[in-house]
Amino acid sequence: MSYIAPLKDMQFVLNELANLSEISQLPGCEDATPDTVEAVLEENAKFCGEVIAPLNHPSDKEPSFWHDGNVTTSKGFKEAFRGFVEAGWQGVQHPAEFGGQGLPKLVATPCIEMLHASSLSFALVALLTDGAIEALLTAGSEEQKARFIEPLITGKWTGTMNLTEPQAGSDLAAVRTRAVPQGDGTYKVFGTKIFITYGEHDMAENIIHLVLARTPDAPPGVKGISLFIVPKFLVNEDGSLGARNDAHCVSIEHKLGIKASPTAVLQFGDHGGATGYLVGEENRGLEYMFIMMNAARFGVGMQGIALAERAYQKAVAYAKDRVQSRDLAGSSGPVSIIHHPDVRRMLMSMRAQTEAARALAYVGAGLSDLAHHHPDEATRKANLAVYEYLVPIIKGWSTEMSENVARDGVQVHGGMGFIEETGAAQHYRDAKILTIYEGTTAIQANDLVGRKTVRDGGAVAKSILAQVRATEAQLAEVQGDEFAAMRRELAAGSAALEQVVDFMVANIKSDIKGVFAGSVLYLKLAGIVLGGWQMARAALVAHKKLQAGEGDAAFLRAKITTARFFADHILSQAGGLRTAIVEGSAGVLGLAEDQF
Amino acid sequence: MSYIAPLKDMQFVLNELANLSEISQLPGCEDATPDTVEAVLEENAKFCGEVIAPLNHPSDKEPSFWHDGNVTTSKGFKEAFRGFVEAGWQGVQHPAEFGGQGLPKLVATPCIEMLHASSLSFALVALLTDGAIEALLTAGSEEQKARFIEPLITGKWTGTMNLTEPQAGSDLAAVRTRAVPQGDGTYKVFGTKIFITYGEHDMAENIIHLVLARTPDAPPGVKGISLFIVPKFLVNEDGSLGARNDAHCVSIEHKLGIKASPTAVLQFGDHGGATGYLVGEENRGLEYMFIMMNAARFGVGMQGIALAERAYQKAVAYAKDRVQSRDLAGSSGPVSIIHHPDVRRMLMSMRAQTEAARALAYVGAGLSDLAHHHPDEATRKANLAVYEYLVPIIKGWSTEMSENVARDGVQVHGGMGFIEETGAAQHYRDAKILTIYEGTTAIQANDLVGRKTVRDGGAVAKSILAQVRATEAQLAEVQGDEFAAMRRELAAGSAALEQVVDFMVANIKSDIKGVFAGSVLYLKLAGIVLGGWQMARAALVAHKKLQAGEGDAAFLRAKITTARFFADHILSQAGGLRTAIVEGSAGVLGLAEDQF
Repeated sequence: MSYIAPLKDMQFVLNELANLSEISQLPGCEDATPDTVEAVLEENAKFCGEVIAPLNHPSDKEPSFWHDGNVTTSKGFKEAFRGFVEAGWQGVQHPAEFGGQGLPKLVATPCIEMLHASSLSFALVALLTDGAIEALLTAGSEEQKARFIEPLITGKWTGTMNLTEPQAGSDLAAVRTRAVPQGDGTYKVFGTKIFITYGEHDMAENIIHLVLARTPDAPPGVKGISLFIVPKFLVNEDGSLGARNDAHCVSIEHKLGIKASPTAVLQFGDHGGATGYLVGEENRGLEYMFIMMNAARFGVGMQGIALAERAYQKAVAYAKDRVQSRDLAGSSGPVSIIHHPDVRRMLMSMRAQTEAARALAYVGAGLSDLAHHHPDEATRKANLAVYEYLVPIIKGWSTEMSENVARDGVQVHGGMGFIEETGAAQHYRDAKILTIYEGTTAIQANDLVGRKTVRDGGAVAKSILAQVRATEAQLAEVQGDEFAAMRRELAAGSAALEQVVDFMVANIKSDIKGVFAGSVLYLKLAGIVLGGWQMARAALVAHKKLQAGEGDAAFLRAKITTARFFADHILSQAGGLRTAIVEGSAGVLGLAEDQF
Repeated sequence: MSYIAPLKDMQFVLNELANLSEISQLPGCEDATPDTVEAVLEENAKFCGEVIAPLNHPSDKEPSFWHDGNVTTSKGFKEAFRGFVEAGWQGVQHPAEFGGQGLPKLVATPCIEMLHASSLSFALVALLTDGAIEALLTAGSEEQKARFIEPLITGKWTGTMNLTEPQAGSDLAAVRTRAVPQGDGTYKVFGTKIFITYGEHDMAENIIHLVLARTPDAPPGVKGISLFIVPKFLVNEDGSLGARNDAHCVSIEHKLGIKASPTAVLQFGDHGGATGYLVGEENRGLEYMFIMMNAARFGVGMQGIALAERAYQKAVAYAKDRVQSRDLAGSSGPVSIIHHPDVRRMLMSMRAQTEAARALAYVGAGLSDLAHHHPDEATRKANLAVYEYLVPIIKGWSTEMSENVARDGVQVHGGMGFIEETGAAQHYRDAKILTIYEGTTAIQANDLVGRKTVRDGGAVAKSILAQVRATEAQLAEVQGDEFAAMRRELAAGSAALEQVVDFMVANIKSDIKGVFAGSVLYLKLAGIVLGGWQMARAALVAHKKLQAGEGDAAFLRAKITTARFFADHILSQAGGLRTAIVEGSAGVLGLAEDQF
């Protein structure tokens, strides 16, 4: 099999780090019993490994293609999507009243990871549909919910997010698409949207486009943007399909990676106007879109982790199989390359970063469940604040990390890695989109600095740091080099992160550009420290279980070694990042434009 | 123009850091007068920018292709190669007696940079031909030199290096290709070679393959390898072409990048045996190949710098042109994205690393000239030792750096970077080969640790560190934040590097795997510290010139700012690398194979 879901690590993180047992006692999460969760994960792993994962490489070689406004997806995608939705996988985290399984986000998260690890390109249709469902659940009218959500959950239809325009990129203030009210409650939509993932395809009978547009009297900028449902085919009262709407795919992009997922240019209203239905209130579109985007950003973070896991598995398999050169410590003949120290170093780096990012993301998912389902409002609010602090880190750091992991994956393969046939290069190409879409790393970092750090004077960041310090104290109580190394590097990392938070809060008013010059570095530093914190927590659990003679000893010992690797090799970067942020803005901003 | 050679920076490095004036007084280097050098660089820049650079993106879209044993190269390559060789560019650094220009390596180096920046794929034919020329100059008989070198320099023919075999990868001990003496001084060669760059093409009338093979009585392992000339067409006494030799291209690879350069599988001897001529003595092939490889490794390092420069130029152009979002410091409308701090940070990081690697490589080229041309043997020897220490760093660090720079180049373009049409993605794909071929970074690092560091007890490394310390002392004499930052980070970096050298020398015997677990990190640390050293030297020169009112003030001030950026953002990583090397081997080596 080209992908075997890391169920053991997933279960460990769910149970030991992300408090599944607590989450499953929240109102509305009661279905997430240990047995159910185990069964869901095992079934999902089986489906993803057997049905989706084998499509990944062939679909890269024969991507989706455009013809006369239609898009034919890669061989096998249509059938796999049927299997996916019929097994109920689109609905894992969505409400049972609309046909979903109503499981907590924490349980959906490993499912999402498995799906994306199997094929990023395939999984995107589910990710975008999730986003559309979330937006409609949040802001749709009862009638819209009743009409649109169930077919999205059952996979009869799929969803898209239409934000970007040729002139607007990430700057939504520049959106120009117009929505003109028709007096009957509907609107006519006119405009061009680009970079629309699965904006056209042949895997479902209808596509529900969620489109940002301006009404005629809307104020300028982001405060004048509304959200519209623009279905590819209009939907009759009884839910059957009506006329073809004036929303057409005029081309798809030729991309570096995720080639099997069609990235559409959509033209709305070239033939009289595309019929659209306002979601929620006028001019609140950006707010609704942000709900959807936060979910999507978390999802893209999971893509990074998923891709990293798959690249790691591929590299491990090659390193165990490929025999070349003698062992440094002396052997008579050539050995498999996993015996060579630098190959080992790359594999450990891939593994450690993937495990750390997984742990942080799952913990984040659990916080999201607490934020939505906990009976106590103050507890909900406190958890929401921490979750929202983590979202840009989970998105930004996990995807930046996945680029490095995919790169190391090619490197482990040596010359064979550069040959497309091998498949390692696909991961390297695919990874490059993850730090760009749903907001580049810089946009995540702006969010982290602006809305999540300086706005509350660093309070949430400091509250997390207090928890990190508690873990440091626990590390001090355990004997052994591994735990000493973890404690040393985690303490240095948390100190660096605190200094950076203080620096940002202190300087945001007097030197805004100097602060933002370090924003991405701050995001990376936070990812490293919080990822390292999770690895340290994991090592402490592993130690305790080993002491008690519980669990899989080889797995638990590997966890401690991996946590130690993370401390020495990844956490140790914290000091350099601190210097670059706190000392480094003069170098960033010193040149005049014409000196470039 | 898609590429404008950075002549100002090149001249600055040649004259101020690499001591061109000293080099040009060496015996045999006298032609490198300031006027000649300036003219050579300007002409080369013109030719590369106007003729080669425009081929780069189209040839990626329509790469070379194989048909019935022949390879048709991308449109325009054949004509461009004619122009290249007719202008004498293949011969810049080769002896005048064989038709070359006889200029020092230091002057050839910027020419090589410009050629590779224009098109890596195109330039590879010249790089491999250079390697063949070097090998024949070193080890060829007088008759072989007379017959083969001039046509290689004039571009009538081209050269290849045939090392890799399907089962052998980087492990030359495993080479199986056989060479059977025919009793007439010739050999019949039988075997398969893979990954042969320009192993077949239509740009010249003959191809001179240099092939590693074993004679029947050769000892096993690397001590039984000999080097053979195996021309595609046999060459008659008078230099005219004879019969087609039994060396055939059976396929070319479908690669992630450098798609326009054909990477051939060559089959020798399937039809009776390929006629080959021994170069030098039997069983000394590896030694000769290493001469060629050291030159080629330096050349691949230059490829990294060249690609980084081109990716930087592309990103700068886009960042100045693309208008999006308001300025953070407040502006009424959207601004070009070069005003956004994180875009600026990425551009500075690309720029600073490219300039540092350029400076280090050019300084290395100058040392090579001293090592070959200085009249005093002790001076030659001392410079050779430093040059040889630098070669794996120039190769390994410059290419690892170029991956990051090409990655940032895509990132600056945002979503457009992921679209192949834009061209930034090509650099990202092309870059990935550079850390692999001519020896992966790990192989460079093994060379750096084994042959270049521990063998002499760290003596050469320490001699270089003494020079770094002298620069630190000079930094202390200059006022200002920039120089204080440079001094702080350079001192921390050189201390870290010294500790690592001591660690390696002290532990190589007792813990060889623990030492090599940090080999690539040591290579990166050495690159950062020595690159930072060159940037500090450059800043000192710039300061002195500004004080004296000499030179281009904007350029010189930019150099100081860029050096400061390098100190705060790149040199600051030294401490983390030190920790990972000195503390980190337990984490690298701790897992058993079945724990992966």
